[in-house]
Amino acid sequence: MCEANVYIIDKEGKETLLLESVDKVVPTEEGIFLENIYSQRKIVKAKIKEMALVGHRIVLEEK
Amino acid sequence: MCEANVYIIDKEGKETLLLESVDKVVPTEEGIFLENIYSQRKIVKAKIKEMALVGHRIVLEEK
Repeated sequence: MCEANVYIIDKEGKETLLLESVDKVVPTEEGIFLENIYSQRKIVKAKIKEMALVGHRIVLEEK
Repeated sequence: MCEANVYIIDKEGKETLLLESVDKVVPTEEGIFLENIYSQRKIVKAKIKEMALVGHRIVLEEK
């Protein structure tokens, strides 16, 4: 499976794991919608900073 | 390997394959930077529409 872990960097620059095993990432007007392979969903007010898919890593930055 | 194929939807709504086997996706001021596992790079003036990582599919929308 090729899901990724999604991390978020807060306004102080601290990085934390937000959601594991994410399949779907969809930017919406309310924020970035995330859904993982266990059907857990989150919407976060953030922007995408970088994605490294082979490393299973997506980094968001809090807005 | 968990790279994805990146597709782009143009202003007429037509979807085409932009770059295969993409590892890195980084939004920059000049556009979205893409790099695949063969070190091919592209920068495109677009925004991310949706990503389905398990399906190895990223869709961009031309700006």
